[in-house]
Amino acid sequence: MHHLIAIDIGGTRFRAGLFDPEGRRLAVLEDKTSHSGGRDWMLDQLRERVDALRRETEIGACGVSFGGPVDFKSQRVTSVHTPGWRNFALAEWVENTFGLPCRVDNDANCGALGEHRFGAGRGTESMVYLTLSTGIGGGIICHGRLHRGRDGMAGEIGHIPLTHSERTCTCGLKSGCTESLASGRALDQKVREFAAHHPREAVELLKLGKAENLTARELVGAAREGDPAAETIFQEAMEWLARALLITIRLLDPDKIILGGGVAGAGDFLVQSIHQSLRNWRSPMFPDTTEIVLAELGDFAPLHGAAALAMDMVRPC
Amino acid sequence: MHHLIAIDIGGTRFRAGLFDPEGRRLAVLEDKTSHSGGRDWMLDQLRERVDALRRETEIGACGVSFGGPVDFKSQRVTSVHTPGWRNFALAEWVENTFGLPCRVDNDANCGALGEHRFGAGRGTESMVYLTLSTGIGGGIICHGRLHRGRDGMAGEIGHIPLTHSERTCTCGLKSGCTESLASGRALDQKVREFAAHHPREAVELLKLGKAENLTARELVGAAREGDPAAETIFQEAMEWLARALLITIRLLDPDKIILGGGVAGAGDFLVQSIHQSLRNWRSPMFPDTTEIVLAELGDFAPLHGAAALAMDMVRPC
Repeated sequence: MHHLIAIDIGGTRFRAGLFDPEGRRLAVLEDKTSHSGGRDWMLDQLRERVDALRRETEIGACGVSFGGPVDFKSQRVTSVHTPGWRNFALAEWVENTFGLPCRVDNDANCGALGEHRFGAGRGTESMVYLTLSTGIGGGIICHGRLHRGRDGMAGEIGHIPLTHSERTCTCGLKSGCTESLASGRALDQKVREFAAHHPREAVELLKLGKAENLTARELVGAAREGDPAAETIFQEAMEWLARALLITIRLLDPDKIILGGGVAGAGDFLVQSIHQSLRNWRSPMFPDTTEIVLAELGDFAPLHGAAALAMDMVRPC
Repeated sequence: MHHLIAIDIGGTRFRAGLFDPEGRRLAVLEDKTSHSGGRDWMLDQLRERVDALRRETEIGACGVSFGGPVDFKSQRVTSVHTPGWRNFALAEWVENTFGLPCRVDNDANCGALGEHRFGAGRGTESMVYLTLSTGIGGGIICHGRLHRGRDGMAGEIGHIPLTHSERTCTCGLKSGCTESLASGRALDQKVREFAAHHPREAVELLKLGKAENLTARELVGAAREGDPAAETIFQEAMEWLARALLITIRLLDPDKIILGGGVAGAGDFLVQSIHQSLRNWRSPMFPDTTEIVLAELGDFAPLHGAAALAMDMVRPC
């Protein structure tokens, strides 16, 4: 029974972790991601961290969570936004560099795997993991296993069209994608626009920073404190998120929907806000017993999911 | 290797079929459903038909497709709209009456099972079956198996909220459910309202019947013939259906979406209309290779799905 290495490559930070054969986290090394460094810088960092972690331990496999699109079939990163990653054979690099069998998946799928195996989704037959961050990603577990879809694109709840919209989403459409209405980026935009155009109503928000520097963090903080303007902006955005969750419930009727990512840092305040919207859409036809809960592993969910990927290579399930 | 009995109980007709151990259809007895007859009438009809089909054959199991809500866990019908069916233990009745092990599911799940095992979905790892009829139902296959969901409510694509709406859907909400915008019932309403209020533009439609008697059938016929008013009404409704399919693709990225039910009788005309809408929503982020096809088994899909249910009781898969 060998130990496992898990890697989580994100846009703001990266982590390398050592896990025991049962998936318990033994050690983590983490640091900030250098944007100017690009791919080669990141690979150097990972080489150093993994070498340090494996020094005295026999390792069986390595799993990697990548914070961007991954083609699971070819095990290549397909990210186009980050320099050097496009069409990069990341699993092959790990295999060649560390001599370890490796599997790579995107962070939303890894988050789903992590929460299902080790977190709030333990024991569920079906669940949906949502990462509410700058963007919105999702991963789907069905029959106890990750469902990746024909093009590896299942779970893209961030790009469900919810309404006709003036805003162009990161996917290029003006279809009122969830991400364009309820992501961290959308909340940043909304609070900035509101503070710039309504300085009088935004007086509490403007105590927290200049209009152009406000973010989702200040918005959530002010809403929690009961500032009416902040509450309205947050609740309106979360109503769109709730609508995306209702759609997910109608389609999948999962055991649980698990909320992770930075915006999920709003905690119970977020969950209550979603329930408030869902209550308005109750129908006698649907029991709607799907539980909406926060990720148990917090922002470690993708790293634990990467460990699960590694675990399944050593001991297929 | 025993033969199988399959039953399909629908609102307009019912069928009983004899299948061989490999799921080939050998014989079908069918008749119109009597609305006034209620449950007891239907059970008498089924007893007679099944007795006739099994006369000279050893039967291993019976599967039933029911055209209304079924609680799969308790194997009870939960329909409230049809007299006598509410909370009826249908599988138990079959077991007691015919001495056969039995499993019951709703018609959308049975349609999905039928198309997956014997129809357009053969060999797919994931697919969605849509029944476009008076209402809209759906069944989801994931990892090659039916996904029923926590409350047995997965696949309810008819009740995805698509927009804010004035119309109250059968589910009680005014959330622009797919069913309220694109079902057979919605098409009936739309063509009637249009013909009543715009008799001049509806001149071609009114040649087919009085405004209050027009149905989706006349609408599709006139649209196919190139009548501009009929084309517009049909295309607008199918744009909503396409939006529901796009949402399904974003969430599940299935190998195939398979269209069955009466409205799917519009055939390639329907598929082209959906593709026309989907083309307007293409994004460079998504390959969107999900195939949208017509059911191969037509309105026999639920009966074949019922046979698949029976097959799995004899030879679990």
